[in-house]
Amino acid sequence: MESPANTAAHSEHPLDLATRLEALGEGRFAGRIPETYSNFIGPFGGVLAAALLRAPCEHPARLGDPLALTVNFGGPVAPAPFEIAARATRTNRSSQHWTMEMQQGEDIPLTASAVFAHRRETWSTQESDPPPVPAPAEVPSIPGEGLPAWVANYDIRVVSGGMSLLADPPRDQASSETLLWVRDRPARALDFAALAALSDAFFPRLYVRRPRMVPVGTVSLTTYFHADSAELARCGGGFLLGRVRGQRFNKGFFDHSGALWAEDGTLLATTHQVVYYKE
Amino acid sequence: MESPANTAAHSEHPLDLATRLEALGEGRFAGRIPETYSNFIGPFGGVLAAALLRAPCEHPARLGDPLALTVNFGGPVAPAPFEIAARATRTNRSSQHWTMEMQQGEDIPLTASAVFAHRRETWSTQESDPPPVPAPAEVPSIPGEGLPAWVANYDIRVVSGGMSLLADPPRDQASSETLLWVRDRPARALDFAALAALSDAFFPRLYVRRPRMVPVGTVSLTTYFHADSAELARCGGGFLLGRVRGQRFNKGFFDHSGALWAEDGTLLATTHQVVYYKE
Repeated sequence: MESPANTAAHSEHPLDLATRLEALGEGRFAGRIPETYSNFIGPFGGVLAAALLRAPCEHPARLGDPLALTVNFGGPVAPAPFEIAARATRTNRSSQHWTMEMQQGEDIPLTASAVFAHRRETWSTQESDPPPVPAPAEVPSIPGEGLPAWVANYDIRVVSGGMSLLADPPRDQASSETLLWVRDRPARALDFAALAALSDAFFPRLYVRRPRMVPVGTVSLTTYFHADSAELARCGGGFLLGRVRGQRFNKGFFDHSGALWAEDGTLLATTHQVVYYKE
Repeated sequence: MESPANTAAHSEHPLDLATRLEALGEGRFAGRIPETYSNFIGPFGGVLAAALLRAPCEHPARLGDPLALTVNFGGPVAPAPFEIAARATRTNRSSQHWTMEMQQGEDIPLTASAVFAHRRETWSTQESDPPPVPAPAEVPSIPGEGLPAWVANYDIRVVSGGMSLLADPPRDQASSETLLWVRDRPARALDFAALAALSDAFFPRLYVRRPRMVPVGTVSLTTYFHADSAELARCGGGFLLGRVRGQRFNKGFFDHSGALWAEDGTLLATTHQVVYYKE
């Protein structure tokens, strides 16, 4: 846990500047991702997911906290302004369904959907606990050199299952499973937008299996939020433990499934994606 | 594997009749789910997912095979006709993004998105193999009595992790993991619509943990298809092995993640959902 003095206030943090939206009314929002969050082609998918989630979060009709988010990456987002249109398709007593579209001129590079909900006290249990791992302070941060710009915005500490290109010598690995500690850099109090971005901060599973930098790109990303605002707030600027693994790599597409736990072992999110690859 | 004589032709199979769509032009389709696929409230979510997926599949502009499908269940679908509006938001050289909405009058009970793609030969591997289990012939089918109507359309054979209410005596169970064999009843050659429906054919994880029939309902479902049409066709009317497990049950919502393998061990789909519960 960071002391408050080491945690940037939300309004000044790079993630908040990168995902800041200007409300245009009638569910429309304007934004632009700065190049400090660039990936190989276009912005980092996680920061796009966070920007898309912020649209319903900041909509005056919003009910409850995010429960589920799906983002479909249709094509590259240009380094230019965009608009997000957010629409509530259905509002129930304790849940609300949203669809979002990102537009740049005539282009629709991204579509998304989200479910928001009020939680209430009831029988609850956590079935998936984190594996035993060394504490974040005992694991070195990965250097950002030679990696896309967005990586510099995260403190990533790989416990096991690093990129096979960085192995000595570089070699194929039999498992795609990675365990890592991760948090925003500089540290930032956790909220749903930050957690949505962190859900995409696992490097591609193909790069764990095979020691080659080939073209890859997330096609569709789904994250389930298992915590409410109060649980996220308790995490402060602490590290999250991530575990992620691919299940099949077949003819140009692979999947992965992951989990993100707070330092105290609380499961905060599970996240899944399907990824294009050209190998 | 069924012999062809025991496999109903697609046009006559109950699943095809239930998900049959009438093209209205301009991406609109009309349909109606019969009561033979009813769940506790409204139709079985899997048959709704299959109907939503059929809309882009039957659209004249469709490119490639389904790769990802997300369905958001906003509210109950009435036992009445519906329309599905399907729109291609982006078409690339080898992939295509779709959004779908189901409408009943002014109501939008369901929204969905799908990605379609052409696959091509490249380095491929399967990382998640099925666990050792007895063959389908060695496992009894669950009886449909006392269960919703849709269950009669499936041959479900629970290997382990059955509903705790059916344990003797009924009792809490520590794990929500279920292993089961499943296929359409009568058997039907596998295709993407059938696989989309089968992806929702796992009973609720809460019923495995706790021996009480409390209200539950899928809120959002995402399935990734890992096989192409040819691989699905090779499955014929055979059983699929499913493994599924919940990760956290918290204040009214739980998740599960699952996998479906062909009898020969090929991973055909991974599937994830978040579910409302009132306990």
